[in-house]
Amino acid sequence: MLTWKSAVLDNNEQREKKREVLLREAAVVFTRRGFHGTSLADIAENLGVTKAALYTYVQSKAELLFLCHSAAMDAAFESLQEALAQGRNGREKIILTLRMYLEKIIGRQSFGAIILEEGTLTPNDTETIIGRRDLFEREMRKLVLEGIVDGSIVRCNPRLVVFGMLGAVNWVLKWYSPDGMWNEKQLAFAMIQFLERALSTQAVEALIEDPATHS
Amino acid sequence: MLTWKSAVLDNNEQREKKREVLLREAAVVFTRRGFHGTSLADIAENLGVTKAALYTYVQSKAELLFLCHSAAMDAAFESLQEALAQGRNGREKIILTLRMYLEKIIGRQSFGAIILEEGTLTPNDTETIIGRRDLFEREMRKLVLEGIVDGSIVRCNPRLVVFGMLGAVNWVLKWYSPDGMWNEKQLAFAMIQFLERALSTQAVEALIEDPATHS
Repeated sequence: MLTWKSAVLDNNEQREKKREVLLREAAVVFTRRGFHGTSLADIAENLGVTKAALYTYVQSKAELLFLCHSAAMDAAFESLQEALAQGRNGREKIILTLRMYLEKIIGRQSFGAIILEEGTLTPNDTETIIGRRDLFEREMRKLVLEGIVDGSIVRCNPRLVVFGMLGAVNWVLKWYSPDGMWNEKQLAFAMIQFLERALSTQAVEALIEDPATHS
Repeated sequence: MLTWKSAVLDNNEQREKKREVLLREAAVVFTRRGFHGTSLADIAENLGVTKAALYTYVQSKAELLFLCHSAAMDAAFESLQEALAQGRNGREKIILTLRMYLEKIIGRQSFGAIILEEGTLTPNDTETIIGRRDLFEREMRKLVLEGIVDGSIVRCNPRLVVFGMLGAVNWVLKWYSPDGMWNEKQLAFAMIQFLERALSTQAVEALIEDPATHS
């Protein structure tokens, strides 16, 4: 029975792994070609499976896009949660959030989706994603304010600063390749360290000159 | 004759103005819906003209997208040119370039296109745009190196830093509204000032707390 049960678990794990690979592939293709420029058949072909096999994981292309966006928002809120527990001031909290978020969305299993084109998701799904995104941005702005009050962040406009940081972070999805010189931890560390310099009231510290030297 | 000539000039000017408005509208819609999610009919409808009228300006949707990207790259290189003439060190040159570029691409007449989805332009046009984009990024990296050498920019990885700054700058197209509180000059000043803090070897200066207070 134990063997059988392990086999069952393995199947579940395998299904979960396949689902992750599917989401990653879909996110990469959506980011490159746009939602309307991508078909489920393309994604199936890239994965070397039949379209029918994909339908055991998702009902439609729109559901797949929704799952990609949901995974990115899950990554955002998990990172925020961890950062709130670890960070000792506003700056640390925001920096930890962004670093963990970036590591997750460019990680091998969960390349995030950033482009939410109008008219691609159902009105309900759109509302869900935009609602979560707005909430995340609001939490980020609160952390900037907290940092200004506790003295860890320079006086600045939180809305502008949060959009600037999220732009730099989300843009990574447009140019990063996991097959390049830098792994996701190295890249996330160096990119966020660059942004931290812009926020910080502390004296300038050395920046990583080559992310590949950071482990 | 003078009157007639003025009338002709006016027509040319009017045509140029209409072309600018068309490019701006197209760039906004492409950014929001993606290339494949947009039709020339949508753009014509938004502008309150017939599709036939649009065809006196462009031959196809792909040409329109190419013109949007070309306008953004023109803005990039014009900005670089001006900045090279004005900037006194690597940091000033890069900062001036990015500020002018941002002002231009979010300006009322020339909202830039940032998303280049695969398979939307002809191979030739794709090569042209990607070639110009790569060249611009290379020039930016050279300015970062120049700044490191002349002491105006902290030691850092130019590739990462340039992608970070371009991410923050290009992302503005995703969230900025010219009908909001900030005009393009105010926004560009504050956003680039934020990025300059991350680059600079100089002591921290105050950041603009509200771009609306900057004139």
